[in-house]
Amino acid sequence: MRAVIPFDATTPKRRLAPVLDAEERTAFAFSMLRDVLAALSRSRFDPTVLSTAPISDSIAAPVHVDDRPLDAVVTDAIAEDVPLAVVMADLPLLTPEALGRLYELDGDVVLAPGRGGGTNAMVVRDSAFATDYHGVSIRDHRRNARDVGLTVAEIDSFRLGADVDEPADLLEVLLHGDGESAAWLASAGFRIETGSGRPKAVRRDRD
Amino acid sequence: MRAVIPFDATTPKRRLAPVLDAEERTAFAFSMLRDVLAALSRSRFDPTVLSTAPISDSIAAPVHVDDRPLDAVVTDAIAEDVPLAVVMADLPLLTPEALGRLYELDGDVVLAPGRGGGTNAMVVRDSAFATDYHGVSIRDHRRNARDVGLTVAEIDSFRLGADVDEPADLLEVLLHGDGESAAWLASAGFRIETGSGRPKAVRRDRD
Repeated sequence: MRAVIPFDATTPKRRLAPVLDAEERTAFAFSMLRDVLAALSRSRFDPTVLSTAPISDSIAAPVHVDDRPLDAVVTDAIAEDVPLAVVMADLPLLTPEALGRLYELDGDVVLAPGRGGGTNAMVVRDSAFATDYHGVSIRDHRRNARDVGLTVAEIDSFRLGADVDEPADLLEVLLHGDGESAAWLASAGFRIETGSGRPKAVRRDRD
Repeated sequence: MRAVIPFDATTPKRRLAPVLDAEERTAFAFSMLRDVLAALSRSRFDPTVLSTAPISDSIAAPVHVDDRPLDAVVTDAIAEDVPLAVVMADLPLLTPEALGRLYELDGDVVLAPGRGGGTNAMVVRDSAFATDYHGVSIRDHRRNARDVGLTVAEIDSFRLGADVDEPADLLEVLLHGDGESAAWLASAGFRIETGSGRPKAVRRDRD
C-alpha cells in the first residue's frame, strides 16, 4: 500500500526550541524521519516523503516537494489513489509490528490516535474522506468519516501514539527507542533524570 | 488468570488536586477502578482489588485490604501463585481487546509501559521476578527480569499506556473514553478546549 510521510524540512520541531537549537532540531527531525522510514521498509507500505522543501540529507525513499499546507497535500494524495496511508514523520518508536497491525485493520478509515488529540497515522480506503489536521484532529477525523457514511477503526498502539513535539516527549524516546533518534539524543547529552518528581529527559553539558 | 488491581483508597490521585478536591478525587478514582473492572470482566483475567483501606463503594470484584507499600503487596501475590497479572486501577481507557493481547503475549514477564516510565500492567509467569514500582519502573522491571534470566515481552498499547495522574492526562479520557470515568468528567464540567495552543481538558463553572 502506498504511504505518504509529510515532512516539514523548513522549520521542523519548533516546540523543541527550549532544548535544541535550529540546526539540532533539523538533525533530530531527520533522525526521526529515518526511523520512520526504517520501520516502513520492513512493512507492506511503500513510502514517499512529501517534503515542504528539497532535502539534501540521505533518505531511503522518494521525495516529492510540495510546500502547500498539510491538508491540501494529503487531500491531493487521497484524490490520486486509494488505499493510501498517511504516516507522520515524528514517530521514532514506530515498529514494523505496529505498522503490520495498522495494515491489517479493517475500515474505510483506520486512525492511529496520537497523544493530545492528534492523528499520527491513518489508512484511507475511500476517497470521500477529507482530512483536517488542525485542532483536535482525531475527533475531526472521526466526524469527517461519519459525515460521509464511512466506517472507522482505530488502532491501539503506544508506539504509533508517541509523536515527538515537546521536550517532555523526549523521555519516551530514551526509554523505548532503539533507533537513530534515541542514539542522536544520547550523543547530544540527553539522559533520564529521576529525582523526587516524575522522570524526565535532561540535557547534560558536554565537555 | 488471576489479576490483582492495587488501589489507593486512602488519598487517591493527589496530583489531580489542582482541578479536583479530595472528595472528587476519590469519586473519580472509583470511576476509573470500575472502568478497569468492567474491562477485566470481559477478559480472561479474574480480578481481585488490593485496597489500602476498606471500600464502601460498590465494586464488582473481591477486595482484600492491605496497607503495606505496593511492592510488598505485589511481591506476596507473586509468591502466592503465578501466573499473575498486575493491572493498575487508573486506566480508564482499558478495553477487553487490549487485555486480550496482554493475555496472549508470550514471555516470563510481559510489561505494559505507561507514559512517563511507569508500568501500567504486567503478567508474571515466574516467581523469580521482583517488582520495583518506584522511579522509572519500566526500566527497572526490564532489568529485574534480565538479572534473573527471564524473558521479557512488551505490549504496544495506547490504552494500557494511558494512566491518569495529572490534569493533562484528563484530555485523553475525554477524547477516547466511553465509560464511567469519561461520563464523570463530563458531569463535573470538564470539556475539551481548543485554543491557539494544544487542546486540553478545562473545567467550566457549573450553575
